[in-house]
Amino acid sequence: MRALVLFSGGVDSSTCLALAVQKFAKENVTALSISYGQKHIKEIEASNKIADFYGVEHIYLDLTPIFKYSNSSLLSQSDEKVPEKSYAEQLAEGLGSPVTTYVPFRNGLFLASAASIALSKECSVIYYGAHSDDAAGNAYPDCSSRFNNAMNEAIIAGSGEQLKIEAPFIDMTKSGVVAEGIKLGVPYEYTWSCYEGESAPCGKCATCIDRAEAFRLNGVEDPINYLKD
Amino acid sequence: MRALVLFSGGVDSSTCLALAVQKFAKENVTALSISYGQKHIKEIEASNKIADFYGVEHIYLDLTPIFKYSNSSLLSQSDEKVPEKSYAEQLAEGLGSPVTTYVPFRNGLFLASAASIALSKECSVIYYGAHSDDAAGNAYPDCSSRFNNAMNEAIIAGSGEQLKIEAPFIDMTKSGVVAEGIKLGVPYEYTWSCYEGESAPCGKCATCIDRAEAFRLNGVEDPINYLKD
Repeated sequence: MRALVLFSGGVDSSTCLALAVQKFAKENVTALSISYGQKHIKEIEASNKIADFYGVEHIYLDLTPIFKYSNSSLLSQSDEKVPEKSYAEQLAEGLGSPVTTYVPFRNGLFLASAASIALSKECSVIYYGAHSDDAAGNAYPDCSSRFNNAMNEAIIAGSGEQLKIEAPFIDMTKSGVVAEGIKLGVPYEYTWSCYEGESAPCGKCATCIDRAEAFRLNGVEDPINYLKD
Repeated sequence: MRALVLFSGGVDSSTCLALAVQKFAKENVTALSISYGQKHIKEIEASNKIADFYGVEHIYLDLTPIFKYSNSSLLSQSDEKVPEKSYAEQLAEGLGSPVTTYVPFRNGLFLASAASIALSKECSVIYYGAHSDDAAGNAYPDCSSRFNNAMNEAIIAGSGEQLKIEAPFIDMTKSGVVAEGIKLGVPYEYTWSCYEGESAPCGKCATCIDRAEAFRLNGVEDPINYLKD
């Protein structure tokens, strides 16, 4: 049995990759990393290091043209700044729901691309690292279990029951994901989470805030160094 | 209200485009055509003529890299020939279900790409021309109403309820689609259905057979000329 892992090089998908390698053995795992017009290539660099660490096949795909009409603040063409606030603060202040860093139906497109490639490579499962913190308050509706259940059914039905999604963290918080990853020995020092593309993570964007909190809740030091003010 | 039409330049999607233009007016309709590594560019040429005819915005996307690992007989890199048989014959003879011209999760990928672009362009609906003949016997599972219902729910949930799919022909046969198109005055002389890329349609592949039958059942002559033996 073979698995394809949707793999950004961040904390969640790296933990997902570790789980898949544990379950299927590295020879049977393909990691898929996708560019979509982000403001930097730090995630791609991180994904290369971690795929090497695990010794899995690593496929890279560029879907930037699909997002050229979007003004998501995560994208290079956007004139909007990435907010320096947690998701909870952004939602409480009514800055948008979905949040401004939502990239239109990105995870749906990623899962559909993963499905096309997985079927070609005779994988019977896609691993997907979405978790409940990102879905809270509809910040990222394409991380919700409602979305995941429907997309899973679409992939099962649309593939003639040859393929399905496993989303092991869909009902888990990010600190739960980190707890799993610590047990699995995930090399978090290689991961990249920050929305900005500086020499080190900014420590101020929502995903930096969430990441730091997830390590703090586990009583473990995050192995990466943040930018100093 | 704006609509995005998934538009190949064939009979079904051209009829779908006609319906969308009638409902939303051409200024509010965007047609999306996608290359995916087919053996020819006849469909793209056809889509250009028909988009011009209707005066709608026409976006073109190339997703060929996603299918480079696939051996679907519809793709240029495949060594498999397109069967010269109807879908019903292929299924009855056990030549594969899905059929060999199934491109892995293609329609799921197309709908997901359409969703990302539709949200960027402030469309609230995607028009999709799948019909029941293509889904029969699981020839194309990504044309089934089970798939369509799930994909629609994934797009509604994953977009934060900003977008949905309309599939007006999902429970209709291809002859029913042609009946609609005749009423709407669709310029079928510009459409391209054939899986081969000759100077004229082959008349022998499953989609040529289905198309000819759909016109015959309507008692109307197909305005295109087929290759002579």
